[in-house]
Amino acid sequence: MSTVHRVFNFAAGPAVMPVPVLEQIQRDLLALPGVGISILEISHRSKEFEAILAQAEADIRTLAAIPSNYRVLFLQGGASLQFSMVPMNLIGPDSGADYIDTGSWADKAIKEAQKVRAVHVAATTKADNYSRIPQASEIRLTSGASYVHMTSNNTIEGTEWKTLPAVGDTPLVSDTSSDMFSRPIDVARHGLIYAGAQKNMGPAGLTIVIIREDLLERSKSRAAALPTMLNYAVHAENKSLYNTPPVMAIYATGLVMQWLLAQGGLGAIAAVNERKAAKLYAEIDRSGFYRGTAAKDSRSLMNVTFRLPSEDLEKTFVKESTAAGLDGLKGHRAVGGMRASLYNAFPEAGVDALVSFMKEFERKNG
Amino acid sequence: MSTVHRVFNFAAGPAVMPVPVLEQIQRDLLALPGVGISILEISHRSKEFEAILAQAEADIRTLAAIPSNYRVLFLQGGASLQFSMVPMNLIGPDSGADYIDTGSWADKAIKEAQKVRAVHVAATTKADNYSRIPQASEIRLTSGASYVHMTSNNTIEGTEWKTLPAVGDTPLVSDTSSDMFSRPIDVARHGLIYAGAQKNMGPAGLTIVIIREDLLERSKSRAAALPTMLNYAVHAENKSLYNTPPVMAIYATGLVMQWLLAQGGLGAIAAVNERKAAKLYAEIDRSGFYRGTAAKDSRSLMNVTFRLPSEDLEKTFVKESTAAGLDGLKGHRAVGGMRASLYNAFPEAGVDALVSFMKEFERKNG
Repeated sequence: MSTVHRVFNFAAGPAVMPVPVLEQIQRDLLALPGVGISILEISHRSKEFEAILAQAEADIRTLAAIPSNYRVLFLQGGASLQFSMVPMNLIGPDSGADYIDTGSWADKAIKEAQKVRAVHVAATTKADNYSRIPQASEIRLTSGASYVHMTSNNTIEGTEWKTLPAVGDTPLVSDTSSDMFSRPIDVARHGLIYAGAQKNMGPAGLTIVIIREDLLERSKSRAAALPTMLNYAVHAENKSLYNTPPVMAIYATGLVMQWLLAQGGLGAIAAVNERKAAKLYAEIDRSGFYRGTAAKDSRSLMNVTFRLPSEDLEKTFVKESTAAGLDGLKGHRAVGGMRASLYNAFPEAGVDALVSFMKEFERKNG
Repeated sequence: MSTVHRVFNFAAGPAVMPVPVLEQIQRDLLALPGVGISILEISHRSKEFEAILAQAEADIRTLAAIPSNYRVLFLQGGASLQFSMVPMNLIGPDSGADYIDTGSWADKAIKEAQKVRAVHVAATTKADNYSRIPQASEIRLTSGASYVHMTSNNTIEGTEWKTLPAVGDTPLVSDTSSDMFSRPIDVARHGLIYAGAQKNMGPAGLTIVIIREDLLERSKSRAAALPTMLNYAVHAENKSLYNTPPVMAIYATGLVMQWLLAQGGLGAIAAVNERKAAKLYAEIDRSGFYRGTAAKDSRSLMNVTFRLPSEDLEKTFVKESTAAGLDGLKGHRAVGGMRASLYNAFPEAGVDALVSFMKEFERKNG
């Protein structure tokens, strides 16, 4: 299988997956061993799939050391649907919610929540083009808020929280779409954590939600009006099998969880991720030809954003890097420039190849 | 690849897929030819995936002869989420909706709609254990209803509509989850058609919605309150790329559409489906040992439901048929008995094997 041509895929998501996982999926694609049915065909009510689902959950619990009073849900619709589900389930009848605005996705979350109830923006770095995470002193929380919402890693702007904000007893809700399981996470400091799987965890089509059990009571109290499919308590009670789940995406994500455990868990993968990002930031900072867009103390290890001296050079960079087998480096249309996404499965050799390409590009164009 | 052991999979969904499609997915799983990235990893914003999405839509349009004033949407959440999206988008501010209650899924659709607005049950065959489709004379429609909702094939009870109900100018909304693209469909007689892909069309994780363009105006008029992810107009405007779609499920479904075209289209596959179902119903009716549960004029070609003389014999039948490589024949827990699902990709040889098994089982136990 090593003869298959693969490029270095720097895409922001869907994103690169571990090759051994792809090879296992390929090997068993016509029929799961001993079952005689493909993962693309198998009933979600079969004992074989229930075992796959249970193993995926168990491995997630092990990886993230999830306390027993938290439930793990396997849903659909991505973070974008969570932007609505969170306020629809969690905002109390006589209460609002606090949102920390650190980027384009945080802003989308705020806009969806505002359809449910007026919400309070507790801090924003929009005036700085979202180039940094706010200081603790800038965050103004509301007493009695239903929750505080944050975005742990800002995929578009290339920033990430280095420590969690202090929110007291208010449940902290975190959109971790672009860094879930790329580093250790203190689940107990959260009320709810959500993420699309398609960056660090698996293919598109699966959303992971980790929710503290007591918050399910809020969903239950709204069950008469809340669409059943948007009710966290329904999915928890039915162990993510209220309706047909995205079977293939759960299976593939489960295999990635096993791969993560084999790498040594979240502490070990975080060390690799730190090393990969450090190499690239060092090259960005080396000569001044490249310019990082995120404030240094807010730099993301997942999405490394940088500019070149001119937009013309940026176009040339995209074209030539793509031709050199370095795919997906064009930045998000909202901010321009370059973005190298270095998720868990992105190989260190790809970072080395990019750094070499950058040096050579500067030599020719600097 | 022919050495892989595969059973006959009679599951009601997720369900059997065409082997040539599985083989193509397997062959290209590590990297799409000429792309160097797996379908499980590829960006939904890449030109290669946009081409896959456009081809899938074009093939669906060809197969079902979809008029140009209808949009095809690729969504998530299954029919269960459509149960909420349909009323949230389509019920007018001063109007209700008519629902025809023909089974367990129709009943679920009604319950979700009632969270949005009181709806009118225009007909129900619940008193007959949903064993039949209502006669035209039994259907009492409301003047000025926002739409009429029906379930074209009742997966659990094994019944299906043979002709569409007359609804005048009221938009007809049909849940076709278990028969979409198993037979020709007159799209122009509908306002909206929806289906989970995981029965006749592909793997779990994808929902197809076909909506008449003028109905999108209703979604637009509710945009301020409607969650963005539940707004049909948003998905139409963004060509199903408002957020990350279920990439793998769209790709696999697209390959099944090409397979259907290669079989000769919906008329040709319908002829095969009729022949498969006729063989099985003939065996059920042959001696009186087996008993079909659906009224003969309402029998589904997709889900063939039948009972045995006793529940003990039914248990034995499930056990022995599974051991014989005939998998998934146990009926839904809501109705008991047996259910053989004979979707598009279910091979005729599997029907022959089941008929042989049934004859032998009757000989030993009759």
